Amino acid sequence: MAITVVGSVAFDSIETPAGKRERCLGGAATYFSLSASFFTDVRVIAVVGEDFGKRQEAVFDARKIDTRGIERTKGKCFAWEGSYMDDLNEAKTRTTELNVFASFEPKIPDSYRDSKFLFLANIDPVLQRRVRDEMPDVKLVGGDTMNYWIKDHRPALLEVLKGLDILLINDTEVRMLAGKDNLLQAARAVLALGPRALVVKHGEYGATLFHGAKSAGRSFRAPAMLLEEVIDPTGAGDSFAGGFFGYLASQPELTPAAFRRAMFYGSVMGSFACECFGTERLQKLTRKEIDERFTVFRELTHLD
Amino acid sequence: MAITVVGSVAFDSIETPAGKRERCLGGAATYFSLSASFFTDVRVIAVVGEDFGKRQEAVFDARKIDTRGIERTKGKCFAWEGSYMDDLNEAKTRTTELNVFASFEPKIPDSYRDSKFLFLANIDPVLQRRVRDEMPDVKLVGGDTMNYWIKDHRPALLEVLKGLDILLINDTEVRMLAGKDNLLQAARAVLALGPRALVVKHGEYGATLFHGAKSAGRSFRAPAMLLEEVIDPTGAGDSFAGGFFGYLASQPELTPAAFRRAMFYGSVMGSFACECFGTERLQKLTRKEIDERFTVFRELTHLD
Repeated sequence: MAITVVGSVAFDSIETPAGKRERCLGGAATYFSLSASFFTDVRVIAVVGEDFGKRQEAVFDARKIDTRGIERTKGKCFAWEGSYMDDLNEAKTRTTELNVFASFEPKIPDSYRDSKFLFLANIDPVLQRRVRDEMPDVKLVGGDTMNYWIKDHRPALLEVLKGLDILLINDTEVRMLAGKDNLLQAARAVLALGPRALVVKHGEYGATLFHGAKSAGRSFRAPAMLLEEVIDPTGAGDSFAGGFFGYLASQPELTPAAFRRAMFYGSVMGSFACECFGTERLQKLTRKEIDERFTVFRELTHLD
Repeated sequence: MAITVVGSVAFDSIETPAGKRERCLGGAATYFSLSASFFTDVRVIAVVGEDFGKRQEAVFDARKIDTRGIERTKGKCFAWEGSYMDDLNEAKTRTTELNVFASFEPKIPDSYRDSKFLFLANIDPVLQRRVRDEMPDVKLVGGDTMNYWIKDHRPALLEVLKGLDILLINDTEVRMLAGKDNLLQAARAVLALGPRALVVKHGEYGATLFHGAKSAGRSFRAPAMLLEEVIDPTGAGDSFAGGFFGYLASQPELTPAAFRRAMFYGSVMGSFACECFGTERLQKLTRKEIDERFTVFRELTHLD
């Protein structure tokens, strides 16, 4: 079943211990949709400027991603410049130019309205909520957020959480959102805010899925791939979300077993994203490689 | 088959967010042997002072641990005082009194010499090596160390590593020992120093087993238990080592599957250790509880 994703399409300038790249095609919606496109049909809602050209468009086209919801407008794309020189687990932002993103008003094409899955990538919670309200018939809504919204836009974010089925955030974010250090306690507190499930991403240590506030003790842990060299961690979390959500959308039923496999596929996609700068690795990827790595993840964690 | 362990028996004064305890029975050899005793016969080599009395002895006796190798001498036991108030993952040492431990000369009782498994807990590598050399016929030798020996006693430590089958250390230690930040690269570098296998403990994120320098990419990951409240993390790593090594010693053959199950049992024992202050939880534990948690760990990680 088709997924609609709303989020950023951007140009990223990235420095890591492995090197430097200027203006890679990036943004949460880009990583998410490329990753999810290996599992199901994906439709994007975003805004881009005049510097989004044929070359960028071709990246989405090659994966048959529906871009009718990407609004072209005067000005330049969202641009981010960051460095992982101090810590591969945390980007240090050098500059952020919102550009056309500053006045982003998501518009949902009519052809997207039968989407059964909706993913609200990391944008202003006011916009996340608006899109969610305009698509009342979706079967499953996932979302992401970040420290900035948690700290300075909490009331709007809390409204979004009430309408979410699944929240996908990282360790630091879940602790900040809950105001608790203990991961299990923090997860339980976040689940009490609305989401029916919570995925906490632990970077190189994998990710944990928590179900329902009352049974947050019932969890499932997926490993991460140990890579010889992390070339560029940008977009790993969005790629995780794309694999996780994309796999779920491809399943006839959302059983507990489907959720567990979705965690593995999320982790698989996050690991591939780190192997090249920007979306390079996702662009070249094949479904065969994905399933091979899924098997490696099984061997990495299963007793027999 | 019986395990001989050499290490510290100590009194720990501990402060954590959950409370404070004075002079708990602790020390690496204590945690290790209590933990391993649920799987196989354990024999301890250590030194204690006059403050080690009937009550402390009874803790070992209750688990049928052989204490003929615990030397009683004039003076006081090794005493440590530490706090986890800033960070549950890292103890801040307030005071260390070596006492009788300062002149520890491990003596191996004749009755220990047929042990097929040897564990060198975290002590001076010069002493680790001496014990290892005196027990040439053991089938499997495991060992632990810490930042102090890695930084300031490297040549002696490198000699120990050459004689080890399995080294069990944490993330920080493997990176420090290898001088590499990337975990896979660091693991490979450490395996090149001698050990045939390496277990890296990740605290609340579990642990990873690496086999052989040439195939460090072939690894296995065990999860950790998410606890509602970590009462006291002291000894969790030694309890992990005890469960891991104890389980291996109980097996007829050291197959890859046995190593994987040993990783799970290690993680299970580490999780129990954190549930009470000092060794309280290990003292009260039953094999039934251990196997039940093993099942929980399987459900936490297995796809079906």
